[in-house]
Amino acid sequence: MRRNVYWERLLRCKLCKEDYVALDDAGICEKCYKEANEAEEKHKSEIDYLKAKVSFLGFQSLIDSPLQGPCPYLTCFSDFNLVTSSDDSSGPAIPIPAHKAVLVSRSPVFRAMLENEMEESLSGTIKINDASHEALFAFVNFLYTAEACLDEDMACELLVLAEKYQVQHLKTFCENFLIPRLDWDNSITSYAFAQQHNAKRLIEAALSVITNNMNKLTEREEYLELKAKDPRLVVEIYEAYLSKQIKGAIQTDFPP
Amino acid sequence: MRRNVYWERLLRCKLCKEDYVALDDAGICEKCYKEANEAEEKHKSEIDYLKAKVSFLGFQSLIDSPLQGPCPYLTCFSDFNLVTSSDDSSGPAIPIPAHKAVLVSRSPVFRAMLENEMEESLSGTIKINDASHEALFAFVNFLYTAEACLDEDMACELLVLAEKYQVQHLKTFCENFLIPRLDWDNSITSYAFAQQHNAKRLIEAALSVITNNMNKLTEREEYLELKAKDPRLVVEIYEAYLSKQIKGAIQTDFPP
Repeated sequence: MRRNVYWERLLRCKLCKEDYVALDDAGICEKCYKEANEAEEKHKSEIDYLKAKVSFLGFQSLIDSPLQGPCPYLTCFSDFNLVTSSDDSSGPAIPIPAHKAVLVSRSPVFRAMLENEMEESLSGTIKINDASHEALFAFVNFLYTAEACLDEDMACELLVLAEKYQVQHLKTFCENFLIPRLDWDNSITSYAFAQQHNAKRLIEAALSVITNNMNKLTEREEYLELKAKDPRLVVEIYEAYLSKQIKGAIQTDFPP
Repeated sequence: MRRNVYWERLLRCKLCKEDYVALDDAGICEKCYKEANEAEEKHKSEIDYLKAKVSFLGFQSLIDSPLQGPCPYLTCFSDFNLVTSSDDSSGPAIPIPAHKAVLVSRSPVFRAMLENEMEESLSGTIKINDASHEALFAFVNFLYTAEACLDEDMACELLVLAEKYQVQHLKTFCENFLIPRLDWDNSITSYAFAQQHNAKRLIEAALSVITNNMNKLTEREEYLELKAKDPRLVVEIYEAYLSKQIKGAIQTDFPP
């Protein structure tokens, strides 16, 4: 029983029940501990409440519907179709049914198309260029459920659609998937891709990886390609590097 | 500086920075404190993520639309109307436009009505009995946004609609509003109301208030009315009271 011997300096942790050495400011007092616990309970119940709200709003209930097909809510009273202008010769593209009200509420671009009686509104079909049928299906599915099953290719395809149709929530969703997967090998390609599709958080994250590896930068094939194709993007890399160096120098001169 | 004098027994709380007496198991250790902090950060970011999801899914974006009217998303490409069969003679009821796809995804009762080509589906209008226009408007609004502005009357009106159209999320929403407002004065009326509309959590909460005030029960006007009108509900009150007494007796005999 070490606690008896060192009574004044060893305390038992309220959470893990292990002894710990009570350093000058170790631990928190009863009152703060209680408040922190109450805050955690509040957070947990808010999370449960929000999850129930998401499930209510997300059209998920129709996925369990007895209707046929892979995505029943899409066929249910739909008033519109989306279709890819497929390049391959595997036959005509399959239209994906949807609802104008949902498209319009999720995307300002669809809203402009459909509310202003443009060609798309009148024809009852929007043609989506440069997207695979799978990506378009996942895109429409996301508009109904705010969920998507991603791998890296799908995340990139959906990010392109998110930018094109200004679905910010989907862009964030794809960025959240891609950013933790950034490494030195894919950073330059990802940086160029993010620039092309205006994915600001992905640009920042890729720049951070690149500027941590400047000594290896000019050897890379992708660097040379980018320099030839879009030198302004290479300039931005150097600017980010310079800004990082200046910040570093200030912190060395004036440590906080 | 009390901390110097009582060094071994007074610690400084890491959160409020106040001294506290280090009792045997006061406070938590560094490791648990860090973990708790990390968990809080995780909860907060999950809450932010879910809020963004709710906002994306909730048709809120259309509220800011330049379209006319108090609830623009309802008029936007709607394919259906809801109308109250108003009893008053203030002219014909105003239809509330809506979308079949949304109604069907939110309520199994609407789904059955609309998918099975019942009279309502064919006529393009569902008549809602026994609801005010304001309540019906709030009800439809909730189906799109999962939000409602409640007072006690509105919460009761919406709970009735939630039960009738089996919108469980709305029922929970109304119960969450009504339960904290229960007191001895409204408990018997609320109990009878909750029984009539199958609001299980509200029944439990009202029973708890009533069984804490059994000595005053039989004096109440509402009690006598309920006994005359639906004695089975009065029996349930006594059964709940008995069950509470038995539980109390067990706990007194065998304290935990």
